[in-house]
Amino acid sequence: MQEKFQELETRLREIGDLNAIGSVLGWDQSTQMPPGGAPARARQMSTLRRIAHQKATDPVLGQLLEELRSYEESLPYDSDEAGLIRVARRNYERSTKVPADFVAHFSRHRAESFHTWTKARPANDFAAVKPYLEKTLDLRRQQANFFPGYEHIADPLIDFSDQGMTVATLRELFGALREQLVPMVQAITTTQPPADDVCLHQHFPPEQQRALGREVAARLGYDFQRGREDLAPHPFTTSFSIGDVRITTRVDPEHFGGCFFATMHESGHAMYQQGINPAYEGTPLARGTSSGVHESQSRLWENLVGRSRGFWNFFYPRMQETFSTQLGSVPLETFYRAINKVQPGLIRVYADEMTYNLHIIIRFDLELAMLEGRLAIADLPEAWRERYRSDLGIAPPDDCDGVMQDMHWYSGNIGGAFQGYTLGNILSAQFYEAAVAAHPEIPAQLSQGEFGLLFGWLVKNVYWHGRKFTPAELVKRVTGKPLHIDPYIRYLRAKYGELYAL
Amino acid sequence: MQEKFQELETRLREIGDLNAIGSVLGWDQSTQMPPGGAPARARQMSTLRRIAHQKATDPVLGQLLEELRSYEESLPYDSDEAGLIRVARRNYERSTKVPADFVAHFSRHRAESFHTWTKARPANDFAAVKPYLEKTLDLRRQQANFFPGYEHIADPLIDFSDQGMTVATLRELFGALREQLVPMVQAITTTQPPADDVCLHQHFPPEQQRALGREVAARLGYDFQRGREDLAPHPFTTSFSIGDVRITTRVDPEHFGGCFFATMHESGHAMYQQGINPAYEGTPLARGTSSGVHESQSRLWENLVGRSRGFWNFFYPRMQETFSTQLGSVPLETFYRAINKVQPGLIRVYADEMTYNLHIIIRFDLELAMLEGRLAIADLPEAWRERYRSDLGIAPPDDCDGVMQDMHWYSGNIGGAFQGYTLGNILSAQFYEAAVAAHPEIPAQLSQGEFGLLFGWLVKNVYWHGRKFTPAELVKRVTGKPLHIDPYIRYLRAKYGELYAL
Repeated sequence: MQEKFQELETRLREIGDLNAIGSVLGWDQSTQMPPGGAPARARQMSTLRRIAHQKATDPVLGQLLEELRSYEESLPYDSDEAGLIRVARRNYERSTKVPADFVAHFSRHRAESFHTWTKARPANDFAAVKPYLEKTLDLRRQQANFFPGYEHIADPLIDFSDQGMTVATLRELFGALREQLVPMVQAITTTQPPADDVCLHQHFPPEQQRALGREVAARLGYDFQRGREDLAPHPFTTSFSIGDVRITTRVDPEHFGGCFFATMHESGHAMYQQGINPAYEGTPLARGTSSGVHESQSRLWENLVGRSRGFWNFFYPRMQETFSTQLGSVPLETFYRAINKVQPGLIRVYADEMTYNLHIIIRFDLELAMLEGRLAIADLPEAWRERYRSDLGIAPPDDCDGVMQDMHWYSGNIGGAFQGYTLGNILSAQFYEAAVAAHPEIPAQLSQGEFGLLFGWLVKNVYWHGRKFTPAELVKRVTGKPLHIDPYIRYLRAKYGELYAL
Repeated sequence: MQEKFQELETRLREIGDLNAIGSVLGWDQSTQMPPGGAPARARQMSTLRRIAHQKATDPVLGQLLEELRSYEESLPYDSDEAGLIRVARRNYERSTKVPADFVAHFSRHRAESFHTWTKARPANDFAAVKPYLEKTLDLRRQQANFFPGYEHIADPLIDFSDQGMTVATLRELFGALREQLVPMVQAITTTQPPADDVCLHQHFPPEQQRALGREVAARLGYDFQRGREDLAPHPFTTSFSIGDVRITTRVDPEHFGGCFFATMHESGHAMYQQGINPAYEGTPLARGTSSGVHESQSRLWENLVGRSRGFWNFFYPRMQETFSTQLGSVPLETFYRAINKVQPGLIRVYADEMTYNLHIIIRFDLELAMLEGRLAIADLPEAWRERYRSDLGIAPPDDCDGVMQDMHWYSGNIGGAFQGYTLGNILSAQFYEAAVAAHPEIPAQLSQGEFGLLFGWLVKNVYWHGRKFTPAELVKRVTGKPLHIDPYIRYLRAKYGELYAL
């Protein structure tokens, strides 16, 4: 059995290597590649994916997993070996249910659709992407139907990124959240004028912004010996191994915040990847366990730490030193209120903590309506405007900053693409509350610019396990409870209650 | 047959894609990768190479090439189809003669040996690399013996990079060259003091040096829409497709020349790759035809253009504008003599045009002596010193800048690694003479900063063909004669005769 298990590991590492190589190609394409490289790169990625898919669906691998079934059952559930077999089996079953032809066809369609979107968005041309979205919807339905037995057609699509989550659970969760958020947002925005954030709208030299972001990332725990930071139009984190996890950021020379918080956000993702047990290197365990748990870490570091009073108590003098002309005479309180300004806006990625989830819930509801056949693509832009009017009280003047603002649907992900963001927000508070319960001195340490206790707790309890446990198992193990919104609501009430004297 | 040919193309493009992906991994490793990425990267590259090797030696490919033999014979020799089958057959035969186990074993040894050298060189510790060199020598002999029927044991190793070249031919060629060079070098160095190059030894800000290099590269014909320039400790050019050919350079803030000429040199390699017929994209024809022909292009642009009086007549005012403090009061003649200073030195990569080939011939002779068993590795450092004393009149004070200065032997290439440089020098003049014979206005154009005529001629006659013709065929087609040293000697005599009033 030991021999069979080793053969499994060898095969999984080979697949892991090919996937990691694909990530290198993707990172290079987004951050370094000259325009002329595009056609060949697309072909190279498709060649690599085809070979990886062949290896991932090789019947010999299936046979091996069958032969290891009794071995797996003889092992403790928590053991790394059992975890590896379990995750490998799940991956194998998911991969083999989808025909290779479908994968290749969908992959080409995704690329074409995304390419069309990049040109159509600036031109505000929804008509150009409409046929692509229609085909995406059709293909996503087909994809879901390779996994029969679901309750809702979006369930298998959600399960790809947030294992175990269903539309039924999410509707209840998001409904309860929305019920709490809407009155809070209204209380803030109708009873008082918006916070003054003019101090953020000044010239901040890009290289200084980036340097500051890197400095903070390193302080938090992101290891630059095993990573690097580059520019990308849409910031992301990518991992080629536990020893090479790269972040990207963006920078607006006329605004402070975009770059800084993008860097903190991506560092959160990256610290998760860097903190995985090195023994999992190259295997399917060396990943975050779900989109929601991954997002909980980017959000925890970006918001619960990075937009906290404690953090800026310590860090603001350093900031003022770097940007003395811009911020030298701006009081901490003004700055703190500026970076936590609550104001309904059009764009998800610029949204504050309070309204962010409303953006997500709109998208979630709309994609369910599309998948259920209640909403035709032709009617999507109007449905989008309608929901922005009713939920956020503003109406997008165009599709560019309306229905076309996010790449997700246009790169082939209708269904399953957005719920992770709000799950992440909810979980960020649940994990943070558990960390503080274990180490009540954490908030005081953050105020002194020390992050080791929080970081260490997260590594030990969350990061280290990679994908060994399902999201539900991990949340239960770490916090003692299933995922629930109370800590997040408590966090928002405390922070914004104080800020806005609610 | 058309169908079989298409199947061949598909298979070759798949192998080409995997090789290109390997180059992306290598470029990233040399220019971008954080230190922590090294272990996983080595594994990923080895996984990729193994898969590429399996595909390149797949018996189905061999069968296909057999089936296409009569088709190939029915085609004109010059046709692209015939060329592709011919080159694919040669690659297949070479790959299948070497057992996969040997390839894997040698590849691991190369990596370990190189890694040891990077640490041993700064420590001047030849003893540390000695066992690796001994094993390399043994493995290179084994490698040669997979290709029996050679006249000299180095012949198969030379043939890998300079198809058709043999020790017998090279000894004659290099002997004749040395006979001409040694008295010329002596005449220059014994009859007059060395040129004054103090103007090059000033502070030149790195970013300005690089910007100037990029500006000139673009003027020559290097297309940055299909390339980019980065820093690397040992500059190189790499190609992921005809649309993505990247150069690297190095920069010494206290010296002008290293960066500028490295950029011109690598641009020459890159223009060759960018100039290949786009129809060859992804196939084994989309490469230079040999190490020597490739080097002829880097040398032509670096030396025959970049160190010419004509080029600087045009470009020196621009230089003086950029570096007004450093060069504003330095006359063109002083600068021109400085960048063409002839002075025997220890280091090949810093050598002037005249003495450069003497460095190569020393290495070539020593590696033949090792392969023939006339020279033990233990005696190599002393043999090196001995030859430097006799041929260049100087003795390396240590091994660091002596026998350990070049990575070639230490990365597994004893035999076949150096002849290409001198073949390139010889050919650079032979090609240039042919270009000027076709377009006598070329030198005048260079003096006006116009490179289009020369570049266009090289694309049409050399670059476009990629690897379709063997080096010997290409040289004969383009220059009407086989490779010979006369144009190179004429070039050196004219240039240095004028410079040093010989």
